Amino acid sequence: MKKSALQKARAAYQPKLPIVLTGPVKAVEGKPTESVADQAEIKALFPNTYGLPELKFEKNANPTAGRPINVGVILSGGQAPGGHNVISGLFDGIKKIHRDSRLYGFLMGPGGLVDHKYMELTAPIINEYRNTGGFDIIGSGRTKLETKEQFDKGLEILRELDIKALVIIGGDDSNTNAAILAEYYKEIGAGVQVIGCPKTIDGDLKNSQIETSFGFDTATKVYSEVIGNIQRDCNSAKKYWHFIKLMGRSASHIALECALQTQPNICIISEEVEAKNLSLDDVVANIANTVAARAENGDNFGIVLIPEGLIEFIPAIKSLIRELNDVLAEHPDLATKSADEIFAFIKANLSADNAATLASLPEKVARQLCLDRDPHGNVQVSLIETEKLLSEMVAKKLDEMAKDGKFNGKFSALHHFFGYEGRCADPSNFDADYCYALGFNATCLINSGVTGYMSSVRNLTKPSVQWVAGGIPITMMMNMERRNGAMKPVIQKALVDLDGAPFKKFASQRDDWAVNTCYVYPGPIQYFGPAEVCDQPSLTLKYEHQGK
Amino acid sequence: MKKSALQKARAAYQPKLPIVLTGPVKAVEGKPTESVADQAEIKALFPNTYGLPELKFEKNANPTAGRPINVGVILSGGQAPGGHNVISGLFDGIKKIHRDSRLYGFLMGPGGLVDHKYMELTAPIINEYRNTGGFDIIGSGRTKLETKEQFDKGLEILRELDIKALVIIGGDDSNTNAAILAEYYKEIGAGVQVIGCPKTIDGDLKNSQIETSFGFDTATKVYSEVIGNIQRDCNSAKKYWHFIKLMGRSASHIALECALQTQPNICIISEEVEAKNLSLDDVVANIANTVAARAENGDNFGIVLIPEGLIEFIPAIKSLIRELNDVLAEHPDLATKSADEIFAFIKANLSADNAATLASLPEKVARQLCLDRDPHGNVQVSLIETEKLLSEMVAKKLDEMAKDGKFNGKFSALHHFFGYEGRCADPSNFDADYCYALGFNATCLINSGVTGYMSSVRNLTKPSVQWVAGGIPITMMMNMERRNGAMKPVIQKALVDLDGAPFKKFASQRDDWAVNTCYVYPGPIQYFGPAEVCDQPSLTLKYEHQGK
Repeated sequence: MKKSALQKARAAYQPKLPIVLTGPVKAVEGKPTESVADQAEIKALFPNTYGLPELKFEKNANPTAGRPINVGVILSGGQAPGGHNVISGLFDGIKKIHRDSRLYGFLMGPGGLVDHKYMELTAPIINEYRNTGGFDIIGSGRTKLETKEQFDKGLEILRELDIKALVIIGGDDSNTNAAILAEYYKEIGAGVQVIGCPKTIDGDLKNSQIETSFGFDTATKVYSEVIGNIQRDCNSAKKYWHFIKLMGRSASHIALECALQTQPNICIISEEVEAKNLSLDDVVANIANTVAARAENGDNFGIVLIPEGLIEFIPAIKSLIRELNDVLAEHPDLATKSADEIFAFIKANLSADNAATLASLPEKVARQLCLDRDPHGNVQVSLIETEKLLSEMVAKKLDEMAKDGKFNGKFSALHHFFGYEGRCADPSNFDADYCYALGFNATCLINSGVTGYMSSVRNLTKPSVQWVAGGIPITMMMNMERRNGAMKPVIQKALVDLDGAPFKKFASQRDDWAVNTCYVYPGPIQYFGPAEVCDQPSLTLKYEHQGK
Repeated sequence: MKKSALQKARAAYQPKLPIVLTGPVKAVEGKPTESVADQAEIKALFPNTYGLPELKFEKNANPTAGRPINVGVILSGGQAPGGHNVISGLFDGIKKIHRDSRLYGFLMGPGGLVDHKYMELTAPIINEYRNTGGFDIIGSGRTKLETKEQFDKGLEILRELDIKALVIIGGDDSNTNAAILAEYYKEIGAGVQVIGCPKTIDGDLKNSQIETSFGFDTATKVYSEVIGNIQRDCNSAKKYWHFIKLMGRSASHIALECALQTQPNICIISEEVEAKNLSLDDVVANIANTVAARAENGDNFGIVLIPEGLIEFIPAIKSLIRELNDVLAEHPDLATKSADEIFAFIKANLSADNAATLASLPEKVARQLCLDRDPHGNVQVSLIETEKLLSEMVAKKLDEMAKDGKFNGKFSALHHFFGYEGRCADPSNFDADYCYALGFNATCLINSGVTGYMSSVRNLTKPSVQWVAGGIPITMMMNMERRNGAMKPVIQKALVDLDGAPFKKFASQRDDWAVNTCYVYPGPIQYFGPAEVCDQPSLTLKYEHQGK
């Protein structure tokens, strides 16, 4: 494998650990926990793993000698920068417990466990991947672990390899399934612990116990780099409006963080659109008004950030999507029909309001909404070119405004979508440290004998030596939600909190950013320079924990 | 202006100069020069500035005291990283000649000279922009300086501000116009020198005298960063083919450099397509064959790099475009017609072969070719979504191959276009140094009293202290070419040389890269780390000058 100069230089980086994890630890139990909502239902579904206490690691003055342990690891779902460091932290952790411990990686996601596809991760392999981006060490995949058959099939290979603990690195869905697997293995006395790690660039796996998911920091820094570069271009040529869509399936954390970093003219926050019950036309009118206001100053250029999930948050469209999901779930036979047949069937079977909303959309977008779905049955929002839809509608609106004398400028739009550029970037120092700590900490949870916990490293806005390490029962983060037409226990997604400090900071400045040009140019992630350049956490994290 | 942490840290960077420019210099004349072709025509068009000698600066042991000089500067055409450093080098250079020298920037490109829009660039302004990307210090524009009226109008403001020298920072077209302006001002005895600086991320302004244009290094490093990140994602998920189009109006230098940096499965080089007389179908078949070969190994994923100008290099399409340009130039009245009328007129007035080629293209692409033109009358290749055109045609081809049992895999494509992400990035250390030296060197040319020269800094693969500084008569780089239906003197564009070392290096390895997965992940530009990470010139430059 030929390596770039940066890869070679980064291989030598030693990620920092919380001070407590640099020596032997003991787990200190907090109070028993409750799920965030629907306590009775969650408790009934998780009789063996519900209500466990939070754990915090403290120094252990009288450690006992460790024994070799075999651990399995799975990368689940979309890539996020730092996954390789979770695995290297895990490797170093179990080797510290005992040099004869072994780490097995299941290949291409949870499917590798079910299909018994795996490899042993030895020191030479691990050393090739330290501090690198990507999930290519063992690959990732989107198979959902949810059936008893899968669990039993997985247990066969776990027993064969004498694996006593399984670490699942994933987002909210994958950690939900980790909790279900933990419950099942506990119930049948399988003797296999299951530990989760909070991964997702979307930033929506966070709560009062988990400060941030890993990968968010790096991905938003990459997006902010290219947004800043485009802003500088925009402010040099002064002739284009750039509509930039940013990855993030539902929540707008990525767009908000990038806006705080780069100060664009406009950033749409889906959660606000929903809270204010805005229509698509309202969103378009807001953009057009800003374009017109800037044109008054002779500034026929600007930047609009658009969260990928926007279209799902517009209440009328959200209602449409909800009914579409139900119709499709109720008619699995549709999968065998032609696109035109499916489209016609759906149009004929929607309620009047939703049929009207569907009809109001451009045909191309309407068809995408009806036809393109991901393996979970979700609308494939990433395929809808919201950035082009919006700019076309803005152009139309400006034409109308021009006729009324309300717009006297030029409007020329360019489009971008950033997602794949950031998911596998080399982790920032923050993510490199955080991920390594999450993996190392997971081995401490394993060593404590617990199951159904998520690895937790907190106090992240402080220097890494002051970070706090422990474990959170996954059931604590759960509530009941409707999925594919049925109520299921799931980890509650964290959307952008409109009363939270990051949004308030944005909201207090955006009017200035809209009309005046206040672009900030963050530049590329730096690894070797001064700490104020290289070692800063996200602004979201900083504002959320300021003064705490 | 709020600054990012990186901007603040970079403001302190002191760009390196060739050792010779750190003290007083004298210009040493080489032999008289000839244009690269069409010597008689060029000589006739440039009687006052043709045949001048190359200049090289050497230490001057007996310098005379400098006198204050007022200099004007123009940023012309598309942005390129480092423009601000050319200007700061220029500023420091004229201040070194005499502290009372003044620098004036003309606003929003050459139009600022004609329209008398300018600002004085003082130390506090210059200091805000050192080592930053973008052209926002004075803006840029695409107005072409080509008429006597423009030249005379410009002279008014130059006289008013007592400007004795004008520095034009631009690509081949802008430097061509700089030469014409120099010739004119010399002819009429205006007393204003004109000096050019070689700018363009496209890398096509280079020749035996100019080793590279500035901005190419940084822009290709930014593109290589995001390509590398996408490759890592591609190799983790193993389920998509990413079709990545890269900016670069004609030449494929950007795509080639990025391929050398990242080792993708496929990189199309337009110049090779032309040399081998390939049809669009040939290009599609080549890609499809590689997709099928990888599928045989179970690898249903890959990366294709596509130069923006590809479509213009396919001989049949090139012939079509040539006739389109002529038809449009001969019928200026078409500009007032509707799109449908123009399209119908063109279809009716093409030769049979070219009409057939036009008809073979998807309607959408055919219309784009006929209707969308830039201010120079060129086809707007950047608007043609070549990446989607190719992936659609590849999918179709693979369907046919599957029926013949020649493809047994999956093909799912994603698309990207990178251009604006790199044009205004913070300059790499290489571009920061090179640009500062080009600007500083321009003041030495001014001080030598010459006009019609391009600032030249050479020996660029060596440490910057060993760089060689001097000046090249712009007429030396010229030949006659057909533009908008008439023969004009222009600087010869440097296309990718299929016998050159960079292409040969690529060609010798690409079969391996195609079937095996040999991705390299360059990561983001670094400014503060080890020299092997931070201070490397482009591989194109390195291979071109290896062993010299």
